[in-house]
This record gives sequence, structure tokens and C-alpha cells, in this order.
Amino acid sequence: MTDGSSPLALVVLAAGKGTRMKSDLHKVLHPIAGRPMLMHLLASADALEPQRKVVVVGAGREQLAKALGESAELAVQDPQLGTGHAVQQAEGALAGFAGDVLILYGDVPFVRTETMRAMLERLHGDDNPAVVVLGFEPEDALQYGRVIARDGVVQKMVEHKDASAEERACRLCNSGLMAVRGSDLFGLLARVGNDNAQGEYYLTDIVNVANGDGRVCAVVVTDDPDEVAGINSRAELAEAEARWQNKRRLQAMADGASLVAPETVWFAWDTQLGRDVTVEQNVVFGPGVTVADGVVIHAFCHIEGARLETGTSVGPFARLRPGAVLEEKARVGNFVEVKNAVLHAGAKANHLTYLGDADVGAGANIGAGTITCNYDGYFKYRTVIGERAFIGSNSALIAPVKIGADAIVAAGSAVSRDVADGELRLVRAEQLVKPGWADRFHDAMKRKKAERK
Amino acid sequence: MTDGSSPLALVVLAAGKGTRMKSDLHKVLHPIAGRPMLMHLLASADALEPQRKVVVVGAGREQLAKALGESAELAVQDPQLGTGHAVQQAEGALAGFAGDVLILYGDVPFVRTETMRAMLERLHGDDNPAVVVLGFEPEDALQYGRVIARDGVVQKMVEHKDASAEERACRLCNSGLMAVRGSDLFGLLARVGNDNAQGEYYLTDIVNVANGDGRVCAVVVTDDPDEVAGINSRAELAEAEARWQNKRRLQAMADGASLVAPETVWFAWDTQLGRDVTVEQNVVFGPGVTVADGVVIHAFCHIEGARLETGTSVGPFARLRPGAVLEEKARVGNFVEVKNAVLHAGAKANHLTYLGDADVGAGANIGAGTITCNYDGYFKYRTVIGERAFIGSNSALIAPVKIGADAIVAAGSAVSRDVADGELRLVRAEQLVKPGWADRFHDAMKRKKAERK
Amino acid sequence: MTDGSSPLALVVLAAGKGTRMKSDLHKVLHPIAGRPMLMHLLASADALEPQRKVVVVGAGREQLAKALGESAELAVQDPQLGTGHAVQQAEGALAGFAGDVLILYGDVPFVRTETMRAMLERLHGDDNPAVVVLGFEPEDALQYGRVIARDGVVQKMVEHKDASAEERACRLCNSGLMAVRGSDLFGLLARVGNDNAQGEYYLTDIVNVANGDGRVCAVVVTDDPDEVAGINSRAELAEAEARWQNKRRLQAMADGASLVAPETVWFAWDTQLGRDVTVEQNVVFGPGVTVADGVVIHAFCHIEGARLETGTSVGPFARLRPGAVLEEKARVGNFVEVKNAVLHAGAKANHLTYLGDADVGAGANIGAGTITCNYDGYFKYRTVIGERAFIGSNSALIAPVKIGADAIVAAGSAVSRDVADGELRLVRAEQLVKPGWADRFHDAMKRKKAERK
Repeated sequence: MTDGSSPLALVVLAAGKGTRMKSDLHKVLHPIAGRPMLMHLLASADALEPQRKVVVVGAGREQLAKALGESAELAVQDPQLGTGHAVQQAEGALAGFAGDVLILYGDVPFVRTETMRAMLERLHGDDNPAVVVLGFEPEDALQYGRVIARDGVVQKMVEHKDASAEERACRLCNSGLMAVRGSDLFGLLARVGNDNAQGEYYLTDIVNVANGDGRVCAVVVTDDPDEVAGINSRAELAEAEARWQNKRRLQAMADGASLVAPETVWFAWDTQLGRDVTVEQNVVFGPGVTVADGVVIHAFCHIEGARLETGTSVGPFARLRPGAVLEEKARVGNFVEVKNAVLHAGAKANHLTYLGDADVGAGANIGAGTITCNYDGYFKYRTVIGERAFIGSNSALIAPVKIGADAIVAAGSAVSRDVADGELRLVRAEQLVKPGWADRFHDAMKRKKAERK
Repeated sequence: MTDGSSPLALVVLAAGKGTRMKSDLHKVLHPIAGRPMLMHLLASADALEPQRKVVVVGAGREQLAKALGESAELAVQDPQLGTGHAVQQAEGALAGFAGDVLILYGDVPFVRTETMRAMLERLHGDDNPAVVVLGFEPEDALQYGRVIARDGVVQKMVEHKDASAEERACRLCNSGLMAVRGSDLFGLLARVGNDNAQGEYYLTDIVNVANGDGRVCAVVVTDDPDEVAGINSRAELAEAEARWQNKRRLQAMADGASLVAPETVWFAWDTQLGRDVTVEQNVVFGPGVTVADGVVIHAFCHIEGARLETGTSVGPFARLRPGAVLEEKARVGNFVEVKNAVLHAGAKANHLTYLGDADVGAGANIGAGTITCNYDGYFKYRTVIGERAFIGSNSALIAPVKIGADAIVAAGSAVSRDVADGELRLVRAEQLVKPGWADRFHDAMKRKKAERK
Repeated sequence: MTDGSSPLALVVLAAGKGTRMKSDLHKVLHPIAGRPMLMHLLASADALEPQRKVVVVGAGREQLAKALGESAELAVQDPQLGTGHAVQQAEGALAGFAGDVLILYGDVPFVRTETMRAMLERLHGDDNPAVVVLGFEPEDALQYGRVIARDGVVQKMVEHKDASAEERACRLCNSGLMAVRGSDLFGLLARVGNDNAQGEYYLTDIVNVANGDGRVCAVVVTDDPDEVAGINSRAELAEAEARWQNKRRLQAMADGASLVAPETVWFAWDTQLGRDVTVEQNVVFGPGVTVADGVVIHAFCHIEGARLETGTSVGPFARLRPGAVLEEKARVGNFVEVKNAVLHAGAKANHLTYLGDADVGAGANIGAGTITCNYDGYFKYRTVIGERAFIGSNSALIAPVKIGADAIVAAGSAVSRDVADGELRLVRAEQLVKPGWADRFHDAMKRKKAERK
């Protein structure tokens, strides 16, 4: 509810074919910052606590049903006879709904909550508008439909191709978003005709219908044209991603993180960064990452579903996968992968290591080239390493296995049985020495190489 | 041949010293998108099926001879007395050639085929021009020579320094490219003098010579000034690379690939991308890569000479080198290098692995830290892994070696003899246990460390 | 000394709280190109051979004391009553100093030596100015204080908020930097009052005081407004880094290095690059790197404290840490880390290797997956590898250990004892074969998996 008085329903149009995306994935499910664009839009609208959410779909409805689950109702538009017709498909789902309806577009995902709220507040203005449209003033008004308005009241909506020169000179354009009372919406839509070149029913026409009834229609104008940018191609998808990232980078710096080269850091929609965090060049955050104060993320890191506690250090060239937890001052270095594993305080895995399904005790040192063998082709098993244990380089820890506190595993060992606290485990064959063998080998091979030429 | 009537010869000027490059490599051999700039130019011209190709060289002719092989003739310009003089050096190679001659520049590599074709078509226009020059209209005309023309007919070519204020106000500039009939070219050149400040013979002057004879000289104007941009420094080389990459990225997106951060994806001249391909941040394609539909290339990958079939997934942090083939749904993960190796359908190598000269059977699983030992310092050998085989982590497969179908190699094994189908191969020494040893070691070392302070 | 006549003192103001940085690190210690911004400034000023350097600090003085060591004196400003008051705190340190004083700002780090020199030269001009201020002409003069001047002589300094419309139309702004004779400075400051909105003592006011005495005050105008850009936030820090990097990249290309994607190469303040060096995409240089002629640095490399000699090749995906030395034609490949290790001429470590505290002989070949085990949890030890030695893949070299010339270590060996010249060392257990075991295992596990469902 916007002001405690009117319940709210969302109607999200997502029936467009998205042909220009050239994709089997539904257009509104293409991700930005690691989240489908539709989910960005719904998250912004959810701050208004809508009671009803109807997504109007055409092709690809199964994909949308799966992505939305119980979070919204689907209404199917088939055939597709225009935006007005699309909204009409929500009539059944909204039968008896008497609150406000906000009409959004699944491919216009970055409308801000405050803009939506401004539209709804305007709908309850003293002049009792029938419709509130969201206008914007782009740099270049191009082919957009124009909103001819005076003092925030719409006089006429006009398509670019039907506009006079004077009307085209008006820079206020129609975003397509609208707020309408549920009690007005479907009645207005029912009176929209399709007597136009495309033979379609246009949502925009409800403004002219309402105006014809002598009702006021109002326009709310966003101060940020970017928020109503539609995404119709992969290039526009990339541009939307870039705009989102740029804003997020500036926010991260304002909050006290140093980004050495901000343009090379990519956040996910839910990345949380502490204060005095340094993020070097080329760091990619997937969803689900929390970074505490004082963390240093070196160049070339890929981090997803991980928690980095105070004073930890990662990379360069590290990959943290879901379930990676670095407790205070733990350190993960280069060419190291951590998955579903906890490094307790001060533990270190600095070089060429795979830690999967593991628990590494505080202060433990994992040597270069260590591999936790967590998979036998069928099941996954855990490796538990004690506090201050020292795992020698190039060791294989064959899970399930437990290495005790202060234990030492000698370099090059494949450890398949538990090692007790303070114990040394050494798995190494005899060193066979063949004096002169290498010299004879070199001679033989050089001859062979010469012969082959 | 352009229209089925006239044979075509190319004269490519590449005798400039390229001093500003500060390089031992010939300027026109510096690569853009993984291919020498000269080869980009010749590829565009080859679409016109030229019968003769003459490259005029000065210094560095050996490098050019090697790069060009049999694909073009070389003519040597020594000493270097100007562009007109350079073209004259092709006279011997073109003796008796009566078709059209297109004069190109090795350091102006991105002239489009259609532009070349337009020049040749204009040469056969009804007004029978003696010379067709290619003009362009840059944002800022700077010091470029001007083409003073009316209705596409050149009235005068004028150097910037000799131009009147009125002439300088003209924005049509001379690219230097020309189309001339072979029967006209060398006669016109012979009448060009060197009575100028540099004492050089300028190609441009043939226009004025022809005009003096009452012949028509025509200008064709490109609508894209970038295509005639010359490359004279490493900064200009980088700018040309950036322009090329930007165009290619837009094309990739228009064709149905998602580029999360397009500015961080670098294609090679011959990269082939399917539909619904996702390319994450920071991916470098070297030459020879084919990517089928539905492939996901994660961040931080370096891919060259590789074929990725439908539904495969690569990276992050993967390197595919020439001869890498990933068949359907195969997967290569982080810190994995693949060279001259095939992963058959569904095979996986997810972590810290080197696969060189190998054949990995369908559905096989290569454990973390696996190394194919393919080299003995003299020769390379192959590793053949059967379908559904399971290679335990940290194993060394010492080629030539064959692992059977459904076979298992235990973690940490160095396998130097073939493993039969369904067999377990375990190469592991006894686990030596020294209870309390680690505790005593810690005590001793702590003492030693304290003493050293 | 600027002209051999006057000694020079620097007063660097660094007492600002830096609140907008939201950092526990002192603002002037935040790094750009791997060096604290204050050190950039001092390095530029050091070219003028100042006899005295006084840094005025407020909070965080311990951090500054540690960073500066003996290289400058600290003067403490507490409480902080304005820029004039800050400079006054240097009076004690400069007691008896009769030369020139240059007043700089720790958060305006990129003032060029030549600009400082121009200010000092102007101070000794024939009209004997009392004060020389540094002015700049920004694109947008914003809220900057204005310098009202005629023919390089200041008529008035005026704060933006006190400026008339006419004065605001003047684009010459006050950078805050000044040159003043030591014999004038503190007398002028003593006469500055704090009768203003903030109740602060402004350094700028010494100009008006001197003008009131009938003294000339002069303005020197920089032609590059960027050099006086102040850094007050992490976003401004990132912008300063970007400007610095862009200049450095252009310089690298002008000097004969190819940067395939210059915007993805980050230099440190002291990086040295030779001629005909190629740096591919995404390369990060930390401090202390020297790169000789003809080196190729492939994509995705992180290089710090390393020396790359002629014809060496690095990466992609390589990390060189301090003490890494690659002698002529040595090669380090993918997923390889080198720390405090020398690869002599032609030595190669191409894949998945950690070389720490090592000496690798000329022509030696380090197999994939080799690890030097240089650490026992307490001390570090060296590995010495002879010329042309061949280290088989997946070997662990347990330091201290010495591998002889032409020696061979068999793949998968953990070598803990020295190997003599020309010797073969093979550390490998028996290959245990269990025919049919894998088949039985697969059957059992498939049953178990089915049961769990």
C-alpha cells in the first residue's frame, strides 16, 4: 500500500516476443548483475507491498512460471493484439480488485520504487486523475510517442508518426508505464479500439478515452531517463548492465571501498562490501557475496556465494565458489579454488590448491598444490583439517579424512586415513636412484631425434 | 574482376619506414585482432578476385616476403622517392597488364571491399575517368590534403600547406587510395615531377597531370572516415584494434550472443560464435576458434585454435590452446589448460589440470590436479582415457598410456602402464605414521626460531 | 635550489580529515599506481632538491611518521583552524630558514616539477613578488575561489561565495599552491585574521595582506588543470589513478611497446618497459618491474618486483612475485607462480607450477604441476636445479634440495634428497592392479545412489 489507504496490484507486461534477442531464453529472464531483469523490477515494486502481481506472458510462459514460482500469477496473452489487449488479460486475475493498478514492463526493469510511488501518489491527487502516465525527457526524443501536457495534466498522447512538427518539438515522451485505479482500468480498456495501422489495441489510448469523458489524466516525469530504458537487444542488455554497474561502483566507493580500476569490477545485485575494502583490477562478484571491513581482494578474482570476514585477503587469481567462508585474516592465494569450505581464522591456502567440502582449522597452512579429493564419481565427502595443521605441498587428502591439530602431512602424500593430533603422516615410496641413467637417456633420445630428421 | 569485364591488379604500398612504431617488426605486419594489418587489407581486396598483387616494400622486405609467401609479388623501392615513385616500382611486375589498378596502403588496412568496388565501378563510369580517388570527410580535417571537387569530379588536389583559406574550408580530404587503368597509370606517373619541398614524386600529382590532359578525375567519398585511418604509431594501432573490436562485439550481440561486459571481450579476426552463447567478462579469443550454440564461456578465459560444441562450458580461468576440442556438454573448469586434446561428450576437467595430447572419453571425469605427462624432453606422447573413466585427483598420467573405459585411477597415482577397462589402478606407497613426531618438530622449530631472533 | 641561488623548503599540508574517504588509512597515503599519493608529490618536488621538507599533519600522524621515516619533518596542527594556521605550524621547523617556501597539498599529488619550478622562478621575477599563487582554468569553474589578475599580477583573491557576477565570470581559479619567501611567509601569516563565516585562518589571505602593503603578488597559470585536481573521495582517487594510467600507457606506446588493449594494462609508478615489448590484455604491474626488449607478456598476468630479460615470455595467467628473474628467453606459462626465483636463460616452467626460493638452471624444463616445497611452517629453504635438468610433471621438490645438471626427476616424484648430475630419480610406489574392481565399485555405488533417492 502506498499511503495506507489503497491496496496495490502490479500488472507486468512480458508478452513481447523479444525477437531481437535471438535467444531461447525469455527476454525478461536475461540477467543483469546476476539476476533476471524481471526480478529487478519486481524487487523494486515489492517495496510498495503489492497485494497482487500479475505477469502477462505470451511465448515462453513455462520459463516464466518456473522463474516466478508462487511469487506472481501468470496471465496468458494469445494471440497478441497490442499492449491494451495485454493488460486486459489480467482482468480475470484482478476480478473484484478495487485498489490501484501499476502497469509495468518486464523489459523496463530499472524503474525506481520512488518513481512508482510518485505515480501512485499522483493518482490520489486532489484532481482525482483517471490515469497517471510516466513521462521522461530523453536526450534525443527520436521516435518515442509524445505526452502533450500542461502543468502536469495530459492534453493528448500522440504517436511520433502522427505528431505535428509542434508536437514533435515537445521533448516529453511516453514511457508506457501507468497507474490506474482497478475500478477504472478495465472499463477504459474495453472502450479502446484497434482502428490503426497495426490493428492493435494500445494501452496509451485509455488516456484519450478518459480525456473524452472529461477525466483528468496526469503525467509524472522522471528526472532520470535511464530508468525507463527498454531492453530489446543484447546490446541494450549490455548497456543496461553497464549503467547498473557504474552506479554500483560509485556507491561502493562512496561507502568507503577503494576500486583501483572501477570499470573492471563487476558486482552482483546483492554484493555487500564493508569499509576500507580494497578491490583491485578485474574482480567479478557473483550473487551471494558478503565482504567485511578491511578485506583486500587482489586482481583477477571470481567470487560467488562467499563470505569474507575482516582482514582476509584473496587472490590474485582466486576463485571462491558457493559456501566458501574465510574467517578473520584467512588468506587464499593464486590459482586456488575454494568451494563449500571454511577457512577458520588465519588459515592459509596460498597456491595452486583445490579446497572442496572442507573445514580448515584456524592457523592451518595448506601447501601449494594440495587437493582435497572430495568426489568418488558418485558422492561428495568432507575433509576436516585441525588447527595449525601443516599440509605439505602436492598432497592429496582423500575424503572422508580428518587431519588432527598440529599434525603434519609430508609433501607429496596421498592421505586416505585419518591423521591424529601432532602426528606426522608421510606417504612416500622409496627414492630410486639410477646414476648415469639420465645421461644415457639423453644420448639415446638425441640419436633418435637426429634419426627422425 | 569487378564487373566481369576488367581484370584487377592491386598495388599495395608498404615501403614506409614506420619509424614512429619503434619496432623491428615491419609496420604492416603488426597485428590487429590476431592478424597482420596487411592481411586484413588483402583479405578485403581478395573478395574482388584480383589477378595480380604487388606489394611495394623498402626496409624489412624479408619479413614481408616470409609473411606473404606466394600470395603476392614484391617490388622493392630503394631509394624511396615518394608515393608516385613507389607505385612506379610495380611497373615491371605489371608489364603488359591492361586491366584496372587499385592502389592501396599497407598501413590503411580497413578499407572495405564495397568501397574498393565503388572506386572501380566509378572508374568505368560513362565519363571515363582517368583516375578515381577515394575521399573522406573527417571530423577534423587537420593537415590532410584536400580534394576540391564538384559533383564528384575533381577540380584540384591540394596539399594542406598549399591550400587557400577557402580550400581549407573544404572538408573533403584525400585518402591517398586510387583506382587507375593500368594502361594509364605508368604514363601518368612518368610525367610527375619532384619539384617540391621534399623533392619527392607524389602519386597525387597524377590527378593534376590527367586534368591537364583534359581527362576527368573522379572522387568517391566514403561514409566512414574510420576505414581510411592510417596506422603510424602504436597508439594508432591500439585505436584501430579498439575500433575493430567494438564493431565485432556489436555484431556478436546482434547475432545472439550475450556479452556481459562487451568492452572486455576480444575477438580474433576469424572467431565464430553461435547463438545463445554467453561470454562473461574478460575473455580473449586467439585465432581459430569456433563456438557452437548455447556455450557458456565464463570470466577470465583465453581460447585459441579451439572448437567448443553445443552446450559446453568453459572457465572461469581456463586456457584452451590449439587443438582443444570440447564435444557436446563437455566442461573445462578453473586453472585448467587443454592443448591438442579432445574431451568427448560430457567429459569434465574442472580444476587445476593439464590435458595435453590427450583423448578423453565421453563422460570421463578428470580429477583436480591431474597432469598428462606428455613430454619427455624430446618427444610428445598421447594419453587415451576411456569412456566414463574416473581419474582421481592429483594423478600423473605418464604418456604414452591408455586408461580403459570405466576404469578408476586412485587419487595421487602416477600411472605409467595401461589400465584395463573396469580396472582400479592404485599407485600409492605405505602410509608411514609417526605419532607425536609433529609435536616434537614444532617444539624444536619454535626453539630454533626463537634462537634466531 | 631552483636557480642555484635560493635554498628551498617544502611545506606540505596533510592535516585534512579526509572524512569522505571513509578510511582508517590517512588520505594522503592512499596509493595511486602502487605508491602513496604523498610520495608522488614529494618525488616531483625532490627534483628541485629542497633542503627542508615539513609535512603538517593532524589525525593519523603515526601513519605519516611511519611512511615518511627520515625523509621529512612533521609538524602537528591541533586544533585545525584553517590552511593559514596549518602553514603556521611549520614556523618552528623552519626557524631561521631564509630561502623560498613552496606550499603544497598532500592530496594534490600530481603537480609537475616544471610547474613548481615556474612558480619559484616567478618568485624571483624583476617585480619581486611577495607571493606567487598557482592558478588554473578548469572546464567548469564551479565553486572554486577566483584569482582576479591582470598581466599575471593578482589584483584580488576572492572566494566563490563572496564573488560578484563579474568576478565569477573570470575562469582563473586558485589552486591553493603558493611560493613565498621564508622571510615573508610567517610575517604575512601573523597578520591574517579569522573574521569569516568558518572562523578560520585562510592561507589565501596573505595575498590580500601583501597587496595591502603595496607588494606585488603574481599568478602562474598551469596549462593542465588536471595537475591541481584534489583527491577527496575514493571516486576522485580512482579518477586520478585513471588519468595517471592513461598518460603512462600513451608513453609506453610512444616508447615502442604494443598494448593490445591499453585500457586494460595497469602500470606501477616505477615500471620500466623496453622496446618491441608486447603487453596483451589485462596485465597488472606492481612496483619494481623491469621489462627488457622483445618481451611478450600474454593476457592475464600479475607481475611485481620482477625482472624480465630480453626475449622472455610470460603467461597467460602467470604471476611473478618479488625476486622473480627471467633470464634471456626463459618462459613462464599458465597458472605458474614464481617468487624469489631465477630462471636462467631458456629455462621453462609452462604449466601449473610453483617456483619459490629456487634457482633454475639454463635450459631446464619444469614439468606441469611441479611444486617447490620451500616452507616447513617455520623456515624457507632453497631449491637448486641444474642446467638442462628435466623435472617430470607433478613432482614435489622438497627444499633444501639440489637437482644436478642434465638430471631427470620422474613424473610424480617427491624428491627430498639431492639428485646428482645426469642421474634419474624416481620416487614411485608399485602400481597395484585390481582387475574388475572398478566395475564392482561402479555397481555398488549405483545401487547406493539409487537407494538414497
